Amino acid sequence: MEDVVIRYLEKPKIKEPVFIEGLPGVGNVGKLAAEHLVDELHAKKFAEIYSKYFPPQVLVGNGGLIKLVNNELYYSKAKNKEQNDLIILVGDYQGLSPEGQYEISDAILKILSDYNVKRIFTLGGYSLGKVVAEPKVLGAATNKALVKEIKKSGVKFLEGALGDSILGASGLFLGLGKFYDIDSVCLMGETSGYFVDPKSARAVLHVLTKILNLKINFEELEVKAQQIDQITSKLKEAEKVKPKREDLGYIG
Amino acid sequence: MEDVVIRYLEKPKIKEPVFIEGLPGVGNVGKLAAEHLVDELHAKKFAEIYSKYFPPQVLVGNGGLIKLVNNELYYSKAKNKEQNDLIILVGDYQGLSPEGQYEISDAILKILSDYNVKRIFTLGGYSLGKVVAEPKVLGAATNKALVKEIKKSGVKFLEGALGDSILGASGLFLGLGKFYDIDSVCLMGETSGYFVDPKSARAVLHVLTKILNLKINFEELEVKAQQIDQITSKLKEAEKVKPKREDLGYIG
Amino acid sequence: MEDVVIRYLEKPKIKEPVFIEGLPGVGNVGKLAAEHLVDELHAKKFAEIYSKYFPPQVLVGNGGLIKLVNNELYYSKAKNKEQNDLIILVGDYQGLSPEGQYEISDAILKILSDYNVKRIFTLGGYSLGKVVAEPKVLGAATNKALVKEIKKSGVKFLEGALGDSILGASGLFLGLGKFYDIDSVCLMGETSGYFVDPKSARAVLHVLTKILNLKINFEELEVKAQQIDQITSKLKEAEKVKPKREDLGYIG
Amino acid sequence: MEDVVIRYLEKPKIKEPVFIEGLPGVGNVGKLAAEHLVDELHAKKFAEIYSKYFPPQVLVGNGGLIKLVNNELYYSKAKNKEQNDLIILVGDYQGLSPEGQYEISDAILKILSDYNVKRIFTLGGYSLGKVVAEPKVLGAATNKALVKEIKKSGVKFLEGALGDSILGASGLFLGLGKFYDIDSVCLMGETSGYFVDPKSARAVLHVLTKILNLKINFEELEVKAQQIDQITSKLKEAEKVKPKREDLGYIG
Repeated sequence: MEDVVIRYLEKPKIKEPVFIEGLPGVGNVGKLAAEHLVDELHAKKFAEIYSKYFPPQVLVGNGGLIKLVNNELYYSKAKNKEQNDLIILVGDYQGLSPEGQYEISDAILKILSDYNVKRIFTLGGYSLGKVVAEPKVLGAATNKALVKEIKKSGVKFLEGALGDSILGASGLFLGLGKFYDIDSVCLMGETSGYFVDPKSARAVLHVLTKILNLKINFEELEVKAQQIDQITSKLKEAEKVKPKREDLGYIG
Repeated sequence: MEDVVIRYLEKPKIKEPVFIEGLPGVGNVGKLAAEHLVDELHAKKFAEIYSKYFPPQVLVGNGGLIKLVNNELYYSKAKNKEQNDLIILVGDYQGLSPEGQYEISDAILKILSDYNVKRIFTLGGYSLGKVVAEPKVLGAATNKALVKEIKKSGVKFLEGALGDSILGASGLFLGLGKFYDIDSVCLMGETSGYFVDPKSARAVLHVLTKILNLKINFEELEVKAQQIDQITSKLKEAEKVKPKREDLGYIG
Repeated sequence: MEDVVIRYLEKPKIKEPVFIEGLPGVGNVGKLAAEHLVDELHAKKFAEIYSKYFPPQVLVGNGGLIKLVNNELYYSKAKNKEQNDLIILVGDYQGLSPEGQYEISDAILKILSDYNVKRIFTLGGYSLGKVVAEPKVLGAATNKALVKEIKKSGVKFLEGALGDSILGASGLFLGLGKFYDIDSVCLMGETSGYFVDPKSARAVLHVLTKILNLKINFEELEVKAQQIDQITSKLKEAEKVKPKREDLGYIG
Repeated sequence: MEDVVIRYLEKPKIKEPVFIEGLPGVGNVGKLAAEHLVDELHAKKFAEIYSKYFPPQVLVGNGGLIKLVNNELYYSKAKNKEQNDLIILVGDYQGLSPEGQYEISDAILKILSDYNVKRIFTLGGYSLGKVVAEPKVLGAATNKALVKEIKKSGVKFLEGALGDSILGASGLFLGLGKFYDIDSVCLMGETSGYFVDPKSARAVLHVLTKILNLKINFEELEVKAQQIDQITSKLKEAEKVKPKREDLGYIG
């Protein structure tokens, strides 16, 4: 079995697209924002990414149908000259191990490179450990010109001299993206980190849609966050009665 | 050493067999059911599966003879036109790591694909966290037609909208099976999850044998569960006095 | 870097040797016994085994000289017709991960197969969880004839019906040895499991030397156990002040 | 993606250089010493080392610019005949897993071998578990002649009979360096192990610069240690509000 398996449903014709990543993470801000964007733009799924670095697990969806956990790539075409073609990455999980995270991000970057992606935006949450009334959007980027440009949209860039760091896919797409000569920005919404945070996702989407000249509706964001909260609770509950490591062991 | 080693004892001539998986898991429902089926059908072992993803461990059996932990494939030929040739997977352990679980399941699916397996049934337990008097059988499957068909046998399909998921081999054979174009169903017997559950295994086997037009005796199931309980206790006791990680360390 | 690196110091001419394994484990019975045998027989080191599955660690020996942790193969030639040429495996550690244990054991078995090893004895401790005055020697083996033969030397074979198992190298050489068609026996001395146990090692060596027609002196065994105890204490003490995982982390 | 990726900025012409390693570890003595040496000698970066065995993480530096965590090689040319050309290794992290540590060290040794490195000095801390007023410098080496030579500079060599060992890169470069026929010494400054220790780093640098006939200023060492302490605190604080394993999980 290959480490990372890409299954194409379609090979869309898109031109110098902008790539947007939103996987599970702090406050699920990135995931919530990216999935909302997929829905609002009616973006179309064109590739599924499977990997042995994801959990060995299928999710059961409506009507008892199963789905192997994965990451998915969607695309959306520009509606006018101010917009860009987009590729959006969403998914159930990030890789479980450090090696897995590197391998999966690098495999996706190879696809992005083939599509001549010219810019990457990774979306995430920046945990403050306390509830925040008006979440700001913080940023980090791969070069000075980009920092300058993105600052104009109200993003406050991290002054990392004192040890800020970005973990997981939101960091790796920037770090590994450099090897593919792709300019990259990470946008992080301030969040408590304690629950799924639609307010923070809204703040991030606000900035992102402004930069990309997109118009979307934010109403469903709150509803989506509630659904996610519900599923999270159910999953955590299920965790308690799920097979544990010892249940995989020898018994007779 | 290869990641997964297949040792054939025989290459049976079987026609479009149905595959049944029953490995250790919640309440050992799947293991108990599949092993009982092997015994009742006098199924014949034709392949042994070894892997570095299993524990580095040998089991000591009757007369002081050892056996390296493994998974095993059995086959049983149809006795009439209403029945199918069968391949049954049983084993001591599932893979220890996520990567291992993917690799082992995929290696076995390659064999199944060579044998033109037309349908997969994975067997397991669905933990309720409390004792259940009359365990129902819950299901999940890879396509709608299959859900409809299996429902007729009294299986209640999961409506996973709220976060149900299936972990380990019982899930992976469905998820990865899709890549081999094999229709798959998971049958889960409700169980407390606290002990080896013959009642739940019986409920699962009841449904499975009905679907596959098999006739088997259920009497030994209770005895087998008691034996497994005994061995489990012994193993847990042994665990307490077994070498710990630090015993593998440098000492002089 | 190769997973397992074999460095030959010599390619001895030995004939159908018997292989003896004694690595760290329960009560360090196997390690103590095998190292004592090496000393008493003046066995000669002919190969060093290094691996990325061992800890990333060097040991500091006399005079400040370092040694990368490893396993080592010694040989000893038969002194008369009743004896066999021997290959003895000793070492600082077993592999850290299950995969590593499989890979290292298999790599060594390839060497043994090249040397036409005709029989394997693995040595270990069988933990009883309580102090034992007169440790018995327990056994397990790969075939019935061998069980019968070894029983004559006073070994009590495990009747594993209730879940006995052998972990690590002492088990794997038996289990994987089967793939190389090598007959194998594991000899385990009963031990409390709480400290380095020279009495148990003596019991094991007693049986082994009887089977192999060897004559050795047991006096130094007690002294050796005391040294090992001392080193173990020092290492455990050192553990407390050694770099922890977080010490490998980013700091500035 | 390759396991270890080397990115050359330059291929310097250096002659039989001496290699100095200083990565994070006990009291960050080695890191502090090596980074100070890079600064004082105005050493020039010529290669960056990335690996999937490092954490999947980018660091945010001044102005919001990111950097994928890595190790880096610097070089400095001899200023007179008493000095040597130098290669210095510094970095954010050591490999996370044992396998990773072996792979990364071995990949770097391949580079060193190409540059005909004639001697290796690894720098680290030796934790005493208590504050020490006048830290001594302890040593270990790969051969007797080297021990004798280095002792002249006031280094006290470990008499490891009682179980001393060196973990991580500082140990592996010595252990694996033997396979490349490179003479190696580890210099460890005594330290409490509880905080970043400029006094211990100074003691180590004192010895090293004496051996290598280098003249450097030690004033900035204290300042640098304070900065590192500050960053460490910030990072530990951040740890508390960073995404945990479960935040990478499925949520909706």
